[in-house]
Amino acid sequence: MRMTIGVDIGGTKVAAGIADAQGRVRDVVRHPTPRGDGEALADVVGEAVRELRDTRAGADIAAVGVGTAGFVDADRATIVLGANLGLAEEPFKERLRRRVDLPVVVENDANAAAWAEVRFGAGRGSEHVVCVTLGTGVGGAVVMGGELQRGRYGVAGEVGHYRVVPFGRRCGCGNHGCWEQYASGRALVGEALDLARAEPKRAERMVELAGGNAEGIEGRAITRAAEEGDEGATACFRAVGEWVGLGLADLAAILDPEVFVIGGGVSDAGDTLLGPVRDSFARHVTGRATRRLAEVRIAELGSQAGIVGAADLALR
Amino acid sequence: MRMTIGVDIGGTKVAAGIADAQGRVRDVVRHPTPRGDGEALADVVGEAVRELRDTRAGADIAAVGVGTAGFVDADRATIVLGANLGLAEEPFKERLRRRVDLPVVVENDANAAAWAEVRFGAGRGSEHVVCVTLGTGVGGAVVMGGELQRGRYGVAGEVGHYRVVPFGRRCGCGNHGCWEQYASGRALVGEALDLARAEPKRAERMVELAGGNAEGIEGRAITRAAEEGDEGATACFRAVGEWVGLGLADLAAILDPEVFVIGGGVSDAGDTLLGPVRDSFARHVTGRATRRLAEVRIAELGSQAGIVGAADLALR
Amino acid sequence: MRMTIGVDIGGTKVAAGIADAQGRVRDVVRHPTPRGDGEALADVVGEAVRELRDTRAGADIAAVGVGTAGFVDADRATIVLGANLGLAEEPFKERLRRRVDLPVVVENDANAAAWAEVRFGAGRGSEHVVCVTLGTGVGGAVVMGGELQRGRYGVAGEVGHYRVVPFGRRCGCGNHGCWEQYASGRALVGEALDLARAEPKRAERMVELAGGNAEGIEGRAITRAAEEGDEGATACFRAVGEWVGLGLADLAAILDPEVFVIGGGVSDAGDTLLGPVRDSFARHVTGRATRRLAEVRIAELGSQAGIVGAADLALR
Amino acid sequence: MRMTIGVDIGGTKVAAGIADAQGRVRDVVRHPTPRGDGEALADVVGEAVRELRDTRAGADIAAVGVGTAGFVDADRATIVLGANLGLAEEPFKERLRRRVDLPVVVENDANAAAWAEVRFGAGRGSEHVVCVTLGTGVGGAVVMGGELQRGRYGVAGEVGHYRVVPFGRRCGCGNHGCWEQYASGRALVGEALDLARAEPKRAERMVELAGGNAEGIEGRAITRAAEEGDEGATACFRAVGEWVGLGLADLAAILDPEVFVIGGGVSDAGDTLLGPVRDSFARHVTGRATRRLAEVRIAELGSQAGIVGAADLALR
Repeated sequence: MRMTIGVDIGGTKVAAGIADAQGRVRDVVRHPTPRGDGEALADVVGEAVRELRDTRAGADIAAVGVGTAGFVDADRATIVLGANLGLAEEPFKERLRRRVDLPVVVENDANAAAWAEVRFGAGRGSEHVVCVTLGTGVGGAVVMGGELQRGRYGVAGEVGHYRVVPFGRRCGCGNHGCWEQYASGRALVGEALDLARAEPKRAERMVELAGGNAEGIEGRAITRAAEEGDEGATACFRAVGEWVGLGLADLAAILDPEVFVIGGGVSDAGDTLLGPVRDSFARHVTGRATRRLAEVRIAELGSQAGIVGAADLALR
Repeated sequence: MRMTIGVDIGGTKVAAGIADAQGRVRDVVRHPTPRGDGEALADVVGEAVRELRDTRAGADIAAVGVGTAGFVDADRATIVLGANLGLAEEPFKERLRRRVDLPVVVENDANAAAWAEVRFGAGRGSEHVVCVTLGTGVGGAVVMGGELQRGRYGVAGEVGHYRVVPFGRRCGCGNHGCWEQYASGRALVGEALDLARAEPKRAERMVELAGGNAEGIEGRAITRAAEEGDEGATACFRAVGEWVGLGLADLAAILDPEVFVIGGGVSDAGDTLLGPVRDSFARHVTGRATRRLAEVRIAELGSQAGIVGAADLALR
Repeated sequence: MRMTIGVDIGGTKVAAGIADAQGRVRDVVRHPTPRGDGEALADVVGEAVRELRDTRAGADIAAVGVGTAGFVDADRATIVLGANLGLAEEPFKERLRRRVDLPVVVENDANAAAWAEVRFGAGRGSEHVVCVTLGTGVGGAVVMGGELQRGRYGVAGEVGHYRVVPFGRRCGCGNHGCWEQYASGRALVGEALDLARAEPKRAERMVELAGGNAEGIEGRAITRAAEEGDEGATACFRAVGEWVGLGLADLAAILDPEVFVIGGGVSDAGDTLLGPVRDSFARHVTGRATRRLAEVRIAELGSQAGIVGAADLALR
Repeated sequence: MRMTIGVDIGGTKVAAGIADAQGRVRDVVRHPTPRGDGEALADVVGEAVRELRDTRAGADIAAVGVGTAGFVDADRATIVLGANLGLAEEPFKERLRRRVDLPVVVENDANAAAWAEVRFGAGRGSEHVVCVTLGTGVGGAVVMGGELQRGRYGVAGEVGHYRVVPFGRRCGCGNHGCWEQYASGRALVGEALDLARAEPKRAERMVELAGGNAEGIEGRAITRAAEEGDEGATACFRAVGEWVGLGLADLAAILDPEVFVIGGGVSDAGDTLLGPVRDSFARHVTGRATRRLAEVRIAELGSQAGIVGAADLALR
């Protein structure tokens, strides 16, 4: 049976596993990520590949797919900028190919995870999927016509940095009003903090869950309070959900996908988030009286999505 | 030599011509568009095809491509909604195929024109192009990975209806703050009117060119005044150009194209428009310190773009 | 008993009556407003004053107060600009004084009506009142420290033209995003129209009350539908009420009044409007956790407020 | 000659001096501010008053005026909330009166300083003045009809917390889009930081003046760079000046003052700030084609304004 190896390079660890054509992963191994040294990183990944091959000596390993933090060029070969890895203009495909003697594909990790959702997760069966990751910031990936669309220079899908509010909140990218300042996990925490300042009573339960200190409120506390039915926490999710839905409406105007897949830490709240998101999307999308509305779903594959997607991309 | 027939169905006339593989069109014929009757429309188009075949009896006509006003479904067969044509759910591909006995492809006219620009015009040589048409409203088309991206239901590229201002100007679509309320020909005229109201002196030349009445100002008068160096008209282009550039910055964050092609009546102003657009784009695009900036170019093919694009799409 | 005559000059008619120190008006007479001729207007007002004096021959008439459409200078003497009256730089106080041989005070009509509310209506008992008139547009008047505040040039209180949305809806004043584009009667009708376009089902009852045509929807139909409990009409009032409340929150930050008095045609909806307005105000005013919230009340004096206020201002 | 004592209570020190009817101050004494103890604070102020009386034994001291950090109630007697002083609901007038046996007036320090500018500084000669203080945040004071307008509950003039951008930048008050997030010293620094992130070259000189670290940029460095002609710093002032002018335009619509007086640390930049502010104000104020524009001036009295204003208020 034909299989591939998928590798997920994060800021702190490298995870690798063997995947079959149905997206099933096995034998996952993990190593710490070396920082600022492309050769060392290639050594670690090469070693992980060897381990996996030894583990399944009989397997027919066709290729290695790597999903990595940072920007990857359009040729899927070079890590152009990987701030979390301390790398820049790193010819990683070539370095790894020399070590493993197999075809290698390098891809951005968000793209790899999104691809996994399209092939085997919440987006399976559709050729037009936009994946949005609501973590600390907001990331994205665009699949159209069944293909992962990477843009001319490999940086398509930076949906967190399209502008939703002129002169809006400052963004770390140097712009103002970027979507991620309104629709991310950090935005959710910001809503809770605003409430704690302006109307402290409504934030009491969240502050309590945060150990008594408003500054200590995290996404988890807000989610838990909302699940308990707390009015203030529910209002925070409604506010963020409104912005998520608005952004999806804009993306629908531009891309007309069949499915939106929502991942990232904020999506752990499930229906608490999805309800306001779908409601907002339906109220804001252009042509809503006549068009077929895209579906909005929560990502299904969790933390292994990166390995699965990278492995599958290596097959193509 | 293998050729195709391209047809451009507008609200008032049907134009058709024969195109070769290099996008050269000849023998263009024109007929009035019948309204509200799909059979009559197919008759007119069928007749035009026959005329062209008769004109070039020896040509090897491989297929017919139709670009039409209105929304076309994802199968490129049915005009889902063509308000200007008085049609809805019209199975036009089938109707025409029966008349011409050739393969038929039906496409939205903006998509057809955009495709022409990518193949033979301002976007040639690139596989990642976003076309934006600044007419009365704002339309668009997305080419990624060398393919025209139509979305799941055929309505991708409605870039004029993504929102740039929360609670902004009313749009005919029922939403507020749509890009086309800020970046279109109508927006340009609005800028001139605002100036005529608030600071009449600065609008004097434009009012003069409009025959003495501010309400009569049209895009042409603004363009002409700007070309003469009129300060007020130049300010109008700067204001609209700012919004065009901002929108391109958002589209670049999402799609990362290599080229933006700007068409439509407002683009007749050429560098008067392009200057402010490029300036605004460069000041607003996320990652501008490090990324390669997409090029912004004026469309080249003019009014025949629809025929050329439809003809070429029929070949594929 | 000491009395004064109050005059209300509108675009179509002049109304005048005798008022006592308790703001009670009697013997109201009405005449058509002559257009574009200050002498003729002074004749009409002078004649009305004579009529009233004849009617109550024994009364001790101390002065005449005039509230007029248009801008009045800070000396309360000249109609600087009265577009609806066809007048400009009109020395109306002097003209009228010569005819009636009584002290004359000229005031803007919105200020006069607001003053009446402060003295005898919804604002009585308070020295810090902001009146907001929600008519076709939005007007206002500011009473602080018990005094009508007219500003240095007589144009204070133009609250309808402070900006609530950067790059927002076009305003007839040549600016964008003025409050009156969001909080006026016209804005209410706009909400209904947007709904009719984007989600026709929700606007059905309003369209029906407007005689079957969305373009014919007026404030009255929206109010009536909302009073019947119609969901769409209620949403229109919620949207406009949200903006009214937001504006009051901004005015409270700047002026810290004790009472807001809401007048104009939109205020006929009473609690249908007040509910959303108070709710929005309470959610948006700065310092809401600790400050005393200003009260929000509907104007009480109706169409005679102009006469009452002008008469009372003449006493001071 | 009749004189009064003015006291300025800040978060770190208490300053007091004797002022004559022309606003001249002499014999200023300073003491550290005791925190969180109203009796101790009254002791310190009482002691300062005694010192000043001893210094000028022959003077006819008529009253004591106190300008203090924090909110003061409408009766000018109680410090309702003085976060920087650690006080709340502090009956300071009564406490001080018992110690000094003179009439006492307590006023907010921003109001006191504004009053000084109106009486003896940049606003002298006008009865309609709005003072705006551009410090870390944005404060304000409103003088209309020759009277300091304090509102019903003493908190008028909180102009920094009226909203200029819906869904704009987070404010410490719990709201979003407050003017002070766009027009303050902190906003100026923010502009410089944004530039350093998004277009580092344009921020080089400011970073250099800040000792090589963008995070260390302060207002002083931006002012100095702008005075040297640095393009990036000038752009920062233009951006903030645009917002200041916009806010003045809104305040002019509501209050129609004759003069705006701009104080606070940002105003140290003088014409570097005033140029963009006046330009923005003139482009945005409603009715700009016909109205008399309010003048915009820099405050003149510097750090003694608080003492001068408090002393003068005590006279009235």
